[in-house]
Amino acid sequence: MDNKKQQILLAERPKGTPDEHTFQFVEADIKQPEEGEVLIQTLYVSVDPYMRGRMIDAPSYVAPFELNAVIDGGVIGKVIASKSNQLEIGDIVIGGYGWQTHYTASEDEVRKVDKEIAPISTHLGILGMTGLTAYFGLLDIGRPKEGETVVISGAAGAVGSVVGQIAKIKGAYVVGIAGSDEKNRYLSDELQFDATINYKTTTNLANDIAKACPNGVDVYFDNVGGDISDAVHANLNKFARIPVCGAISSYNLEGEDIGPRIQTTLIKKSALMQGFTLGDYADRFPEGSKALAQWLQQGKLQYQETIKEGFENIPDAFLDLFKGNNTGKLLVKIAEQ
Amino acid sequence: MDNKKQQILLAERPKGTPDEHTFQFVEADIKQPEEGEVLIQTLYVSVDPYMRGRMIDAPSYVAPFELNAVIDGGVIGKVIASKSNQLEIGDIVIGGYGWQTHYTASEDEVRKVDKEIAPISTHLGILGMTGLTAYFGLLDIGRPKEGETVVISGAAGAVGSVVGQIAKIKGAYVVGIAGSDEKNRYLSDELQFDATINYKTTTNLANDIAKACPNGVDVYFDNVGGDISDAVHANLNKFARIPVCGAISSYNLEGEDIGPRIQTTLIKKSALMQGFTLGDYADRFPEGSKALAQWLQQGKLQYQETIKEGFENIPDAFLDLFKGNNTGKLLVKIAEQ
Repeated sequence: MDNKKQQILLAERPKGTPDEHTFQFVEADIKQPEEGEVLIQTLYVSVDPYMRGRMIDAPSYVAPFELNAVIDGGVIGKVIASKSNQLEIGDIVIGGYGWQTHYTASEDEVRKVDKEIAPISTHLGILGMTGLTAYFGLLDIGRPKEGETVVISGAAGAVGSVVGQIAKIKGAYVVGIAGSDEKNRYLSDELQFDATINYKTTTNLANDIAKACPNGVDVYFDNVGGDISDAVHANLNKFARIPVCGAISSYNLEGEDIGPRIQTTLIKKSALMQGFTLGDYADRFPEGSKALAQWLQQGKLQYQETIKEGFENIPDAFLDLFKGNNTGKLLVKIAEQ
Repeated sequence: MDNKKQQILLAERPKGTPDEHTFQFVEADIKQPEEGEVLIQTLYVSVDPYMRGRMIDAPSYVAPFELNAVIDGGVIGKVIASKSNQLEIGDIVIGGYGWQTHYTASEDEVRKVDKEIAPISTHLGILGMTGLTAYFGLLDIGRPKEGETVVISGAAGAVGSVVGQIAKIKGAYVVGIAGSDEKNRYLSDELQFDATINYKTTTNLANDIAKACPNGVDVYFDNVGGDISDAVHANLNKFARIPVCGAISSYNLEGEDIGPRIQTTLIKKSALMQGFTLGDYADRFPEGSKALAQWLQQGKLQYQETIKEGFENIPDAFLDLFKGNNTGKLLVKIAEQ
């Protein structure tokens, strides 16, 4: 190992879709650990839609990224030098130190993960932020009852594919909206969704949702916003619940996100719409993690990962999120375990 | 009494704002009561924004009005002939038989009201649908905590003025948005609202809301929708709650109600938005009625009525609702008690 590490900084705040000017690759010195610290080599970096919101300088649920600083984000790494009593060389840890090949962390800044329970990458996905987001949004806000109809947009994405499986575990009729026939085959064939809709090939999405949901929509888990959500809203049942998890259709808009106002629909249907972020449920993470690990071990939950390789491909992987190119959790592998 | 009664029928479904073609005055024979029936003379007719929604033929929370039938709505009347063992001449009753001077009702179709507790008109207002709508929307969905900020649009209207007073009873900081300085003086001076905003004279409503709410908005009781609500949404606190009671700004629109989509705001603020109609709480009416009557008798609740006179003026009174001409509950008096 030479004594240098690679980092990706936020070079400028994007207007519209991020591009090559958004990011800057730099080299920095690796700092050897002092007492209570460890040196971590990055193995996997998580790229997630919410990061787009942090690239702009506006009030949001998490602070914006700083300009000319390393882009934050979830990371799995391996301890390669240690002056900690808690962590030893070879331990696998999860942290939020972002897009860099190495990081010198205080031992309290990262958490050791169990290497045995499942492949280590799952701690960034189905057993991590992704799975917990699905778990709390669906069960705390959506509250599907047995036999109810749950519709999911972004259904083949990291969160959506877990939402649908948990809804099935709870006995719901599950309908997924995704952007390719291949994704929809995965949802139907592998994850046992009851029906799927390809929003890119439909000529009338609202009608197709009505056909796919003969009993109407009781829960709509919204990952995308925009006109896909408008079409679902046209099919809500009385007392419908809408966990609002993401609005990926609006993240790269340069202007305002304009569409039908929702108030009249909510009144007519006595419907509930609630935004959330995972941090709202921090005090219940142990409950969620336990349930997810149990379902995974029982074979009731499957997951799919799209893994790109190479530190230099992180920005491209991030941009892929907005092109709908990935199924399941999108990760970038930086080094071998 | 001659043997004829006056009625107002829905002559055609309005596109945009209702006008003289919407309504038709007709005369019909009075039917004398048979066994178990009473003849009622109408004293007060209630005109309410929700009736606009029933004039069109679209799925809503209540069935649309039928064409060429008497327009339904809440009514207070006096029994002037009786073949019922339950109701006698002189009894004051409340019913939903709508815009007609007389009605021959089955004794189970109407409910006798207490003439002593408060003026009889209050059973169409603060002790009736209006008060209950305020009570359940605010307390069940808004759930204001002591010291939180509650903003109300349509604040001087029938429902809004009760919402603000209940919020004060619960210890909240209450800010009303209304359309005239006179209304706002009433809210501040009579109802002890903490701040008010005149949306018609402001040059930047979102800024004025920010100034009036130094601690942000925890609960927004929405009676109006449209750009007034857009401006409130820009000032929500984390975990804000929005009971959506009405969207009067959209009721007479000929096209779609278009504006900023709400999803991103809901996510950023982990905010909840829930539509409701009074019928959702039917099993809790006794609880609400008891609380309202108690507060009224303790002097903690005040009410204002705008009472127009004359059967022929019902359509005009109804149209006034959409011009913002009334403070408090709008009624039309048809005959002396």
